[in-house]
Parts: sequence; C-alpha cells; structure tokens
Amino acid sequence: MKTSSPLTFMTTIFRGRRGKLAADLEGAGWDALVVSHLPNVLYLTGFSGSSGMVVTGSSGTTLFTDGRYAVQARELEGGCRVRIVRGALLDGVAAHLQAIGARRVAFEASHLTVSQNAALKKRTGSKAVRKWGATTGVVEKLRARKDAVEITKIRAAAAVACKALALVLPMVKPGVREVEVAAEIEYLMRRNGAAGPSFETIVASGPRTALPHARPTSRKLRRNELVVLDLGAILDHYCSDLTRTVYLGKPPRRLAEWHRAVGEAHQAAVAALRPGVTGAQVDLAARETLRKHRLDRLFVHSCGHGLGLEIHEEPRLARNIETPLEAGNVVTIEPGVYLEGTGGIRIEDDYLVTDRGSERLTRTCSDIFQH
Amino acid sequence: MKTSSPLTFMTTIFRGRRGKLAADLEGAGWDALVVSHLPNVLYLTGFSGSSGMVVTGSSGTTLFTDGRYAVQARELEGGCRVRIVRGALLDGVAAHLQAIGARRVAFEASHLTVSQNAALKKRTGSKAVRKWGATTGVVEKLRARKDAVEITKIRAAAAVACKALALVLPMVKPGVREVEVAAEIEYLMRRNGAAGPSFETIVASGPRTALPHARPTSRKLRRNELVVLDLGAILDHYCSDLTRTVYLGKPPRRLAEWHRAVGEAHQAAVAALRPGVTGAQVDLAARETLRKHRLDRLFVHSCGHGLGLEIHEEPRLARNIETPLEAGNVVTIEPGVYLEGTGGIRIEDDYLVTDRGSERLTRTCSDIFQH
Repeated sequence: MKTSSPLTFMTTIFRGRRGKLAADLEGAGWDALVVSHLPNVLYLTGFSGSSGMVVTGSSGTTLFTDGRYAVQARELEGGCRVRIVRGALLDGVAAHLQAIGARRVAFEASHLTVSQNAALKKRTGSKAVRKWGATTGVVEKLRARKDAVEITKIRAAAAVACKALALVLPMVKPGVREVEVAAEIEYLMRRNGAAGPSFETIVASGPRTALPHARPTSRKLRRNELVVLDLGAILDHYCSDLTRTVYLGKPPRRLAEWHRAVGEAHQAAVAALRPGVTGAQVDLAARETLRKHRLDRLFVHSCGHGLGLEIHEEPRLARNIETPLEAGNVVTIEPGVYLEGTGGIRIEDDYLVTDRGSERLTRTCSDIFQH
Repeated sequence: MKTSSPLTFMTTIFRGRRGKLAADLEGAGWDALVVSHLPNVLYLTGFSGSSGMVVTGSSGTTLFTDGRYAVQARELEGGCRVRIVRGALLDGVAAHLQAIGARRVAFEASHLTVSQNAALKKRTGSKAVRKWGATTGVVEKLRARKDAVEITKIRAAAAVACKALALVLPMVKPGVREVEVAAEIEYLMRRNGAAGPSFETIVASGPRTALPHARPTSRKLRRNELVVLDLGAILDHYCSDLTRTVYLGKPPRRLAEWHRAVGEAHQAAVAALRPGVTGAQVDLAARETLRKHRLDRLFVHSCGHGLGLEIHEEPRLARNIETPLEAGNVVTIEPGVYLEGTGGIRIEDDYLVTDRGSERLTRTCSDIFQH
C-alpha cells in the first residue's frame, strides 16, 4: 500500500516544492542552486540535521551530509538523492557540480559566508562553472506562502503555545521568579509535544517589561506590576510566537489605557491584513492607531514578521516593506509600547493570510490583562 | 565604591580581551576589525542581544545595535562606546569606518555573508577603505583560551547538567517516552538556574541509539535496551555538554564490552590531553584504543570539541587538527560506537586543559551503565 502511505504523500509535497523552485531557476537562467541555509534544506528535502547542503536544478536534487546522519538520510521523506561526504560538504558539492556539468550556478548570498564562497569557487574550478550568481531569498520566497501541511503544523505549534500560556497563568503570581515561570512554560510546551521553545522564552516583570527583548532573570514578580510573557513552541519543525501582558492587581488607569490602545493597534493591523496589502501598510495601521493615543513614539519595533520553519522569516510587517502580502502567508501581529521607568505592554498573535483577509492561528488564546 | 563593584571588574576583563585583540590586529597590519559573529560580539563587549556588530581596533571599540536594545546597551559591562542604529547595522558600521578614517579593515570571512560583504564594501566606499581583509578565527583564537571568569561559568554550567542528569535518572525507566525524559531534563536544568539547554537534548532509546544525533521521539523506553542521554546547560551564556549511556536491565556481554571499550577510549583520550599535544593526537588515542577492541570502524565522529560561549568551538579534537592545545582550553571528550540494528554507546565529559594535564569539569557526574 505504498501509494497511500504518509511517506509518499510527503514525498509528493517535497517534489512539488522542488518543481516550483526548478521552474524559478530555469526562468532566471540558472542550471543549479547551491542551498546552504538549513531551513531551506529542510524545506526542500525533509532533512533536519545540523550538517546539510543541497544542489538542486535541472539535473534533479542531491542532498549532501556527513556520516553522523547516514541513517536519518536514508529514512528521508523528500525523495531526493543523498550523498554522504567525508570531510567538508563543499568538497562534495563542488565535485557534484563538475559531474553534472552545471555551467551557471546560483548560491544563497545571504547565507553563504565569504569563506564558503571562496572555497566553493576554488574547489569547483573555473573550467566547470562559467557563471556564479549571488541570489537572495529564492527559497525563502517559496517558503513565505505556506501549503496546507505547513499551516496544519503551525496551527498545532500555536495551540501548544496557547495551552502552555493557559496552564502557566495560575503560577504567575507575586513571589515567583521570572526564570521559574519561563522554565515552567518551556516544560509545559514540551510536555504537550513541542520539540522545544521557538526562541528563548521571555518573562519580564516590573521595569524590565520596558525591554522588548528581556531575558528572564531571578527577579521575583511583585504585586501591582506588569508582566510580559512572550513564548513560542517548535512542533514538527514549525514555530509559533505569542505574547500576553498581565498586570498583577488592579491596573492604574494609565496602564489600562495603554493596554487598550495596544489592543486597538493590534486589531487595526489585523483589519488591514489581506492579500495585496503591503507589510508597510499593516505596520502603518498599528502605528496610526497608537498615534491617536499619542503612543506611537513608544512603539520602538516593527509590527510583525513571518513565521514558519524559522521564527523570523518572510514576509516582514515593517515600515519599508512594499511587497504585497499573499494568501498563505503566516505572520505575527505584535504592536507594543515601551517606556523606561514605567514598563512595556505587547500583545502578539499569529495569523494566516487568507483569500479574504486573515485567520487567527493562536485562536485558543484569550486576551487578558488584569490578573 | 565603584572600583570594587563587579561591573568594574568585568569591564577590566572585557578591556583586557580587546587589548589582546588590538595587539593582534596591529601586528597583522589592520586598523580595524568588523565583528559580526554574535558570540564574538558578546565576548568582546558583554552585549548578548540578537542584533549587534562591533568595530574594534586602534580607534577603540564601538558596538552597533538597534533601538530594541537601547536600555540593555546602556547597562553594558564591557565599557565600550555604543551606537543605536536605525535601519541596517552595516550602514552604521560603514559610516563609522569612514568617520574614524580606517584604511585597512578586516572582517570575519567565516561569518560575514556574501551579501553583507557586498553591502559593507559598497556603503563604506572605495575612497575610505583601501584594503579589505578576509580573516578567519581571529577572535575565536582568543576565545579558545578561557580566563578564570569563563572557567568558573563553564564549571557552573557543567554542574547544572550533572545535577539534572542525576535527578532525571530515576525517571529513565521502561514505559516513559523519550520526549518526556528530554522535557524533564531541560526543566531540571532551568529550575537549577540554566537559561536553557545548550543544544536540543538527545534522548534516544533502543535502535535509535545508533544515530549519533537522534532527536527525542514519542517512543517509549523498554526493558533490555540502551538509552543515550546527551544534554547540556547554558548558564550565564556558557555551555556544558554531557553524555551517558545506560542499559535498562542487565546488559548482554557484548554491550558491556562495548561500554568498557568506550570508557577505555575516553580515558586514553583524557590521558593524552595536555598543553602541546594536538587535537589529532587526542583523537588518535581514543581511536587506537577502540581499534584494539576492533571497534574503531564504529567510531563515526571525532573525539571532541571546544566549548564555551558556543557549544562547538575551538579547539577541535579530530583527525586533521595539528594546532597544539594550550592551558585554558575547554573541550569535550566523547568517543562512541554506533552500529545500525544494534545501537550506540557514547560517554562524554568536559575537561579543562591545565598546565600539567587536564581537569574534569563535569566532575559530579558518576559513570553509569546498568540501570
């Protein structure tokens, strides 16, 4: 019953991705692309080890890895050729480019280092490859538009993050340390199936909430203070990302107003989110709403980012992003305001861009503030 | 009492590192080095955010970061200048290189991408910088020799890993899933002060132990099977790395012999570990011991690696490494044997190279097998 096995189903998915990429490469005049960015390797082949490169193009697709991954590579669902390399992977890649007679070869300029680039060119030799192309975002562009399998996985990762948040809330009380809450969140995510957190969990309290990227410390939570909880799970290689800000006690009017303003900015960004709209327009929707509350100067970062195999990927929702959004994009919306000495408030959820607008993926997470 | 504060003490440490680097750069004829690798940025300045670059050299040291890190950057212990950049960090770096009149500028060729390199050169302009230098491992070489503060931190990270292992062992029993054990290990490390695991914790059981880099799955542990536990903690940015292999029940003679052989290979490598010896010699000591047991062909990876701010860093203990070890190096020793269908056994500890030999840093971890 091989045709109905999930392996064959996934093989079809991977082949479809490589087929699209091959068409893009051919259209741009490249015989082959050297893929060195590991999330791109995973996307194209299903290989998730820490040492892998891919050559893909008109001569098919070959994965290069080392002996530690020989067994995993044989179990690969991606249905491509695998070569186990002794020594540097780039040596295997170079020999392969010679063997297939690739003349025009592209590489990932945003990922290949200067050293790797020099080694690749030297080892392949100028007789084999006539033209090298420094490309950017070729695979990332495909990855920005998620297929049904990916959306299912991100949905599952989002559900685990929401569940961990709901389960940890009873522990978010005065006297508990930031690091203890962070440890509990990551434990709850793992116990619910996550491979791990999708980034270092943020638990910041009191004045530390003014740091958008605070690391949890041994500081104890206190009554009448803000607590920012920013967490995400990796499930089956896909990420989620979620933030809630709570106030331990009855919030003073100013902070309640801030929280309402950030919530309004969040909803304004969501209302703007649909195919054809640019990342800059979504960002502006949040920023304009905060401006009405005279809080736009405290919104010190961008409105959101794509997420999938990586916690930050295409498309970005930020001031200068003029590429139109497409159905299948998955993004965070996460406006926030931060003032040193006072604190910070951020509300973040994950959204799928649909044909008509968007759908919240962190859908089991309720909004909270007074706690 | 500013002079006796820990801040001032750490500032001295960071200044010392930058002083050594400045001497190396001057000796090599460079006015400045652009540091883009984040662990190197952290090592030189104390800045641990996700967005940072450094320019260091004869005109002093400047850290470039973005607005999200404005507060952290001001609290920096490293005692260097900080510039908050709007937009791309490389724009700030380029403007700075022009401003200080740097003529001969080195960059980190193993970390700077082809795209970043092109942007840096374009934005700095050919009038300002006359010569660009693709350097490799300049800061890494300094980092390979740990100072007393670093050794104390790695020791603490090692102790947390050992403690988590000791605490999790009662749970390593038939019927428990690999992912549950992994979750428990990471939770125990966090509860004992770790910022997180230093890599994705490996819990592999039965035939999956034959994969040196197995990810934990939902497979349940079973009686009369091997279990490999490979874990490490990050504490105060420094990593530890530890592996034990247990057998759930009374091990068959063949596996008991394998475990003994791996232990002997481990000890042979430790006996070889001292200043002046090369990574290749240490690797060979383990490999030769396994050869006597006719197991060398099952030892499919290298003998060990340096660890510190990164889980894999200099110096490597592998076949082709001819650089002599120095006092202050911190390395793992981790020989293992792997056979598909049978399983794998690995024993790993962390060692400090001392003037006379070495000292085990994972010292509270006892050896175990039958469990």
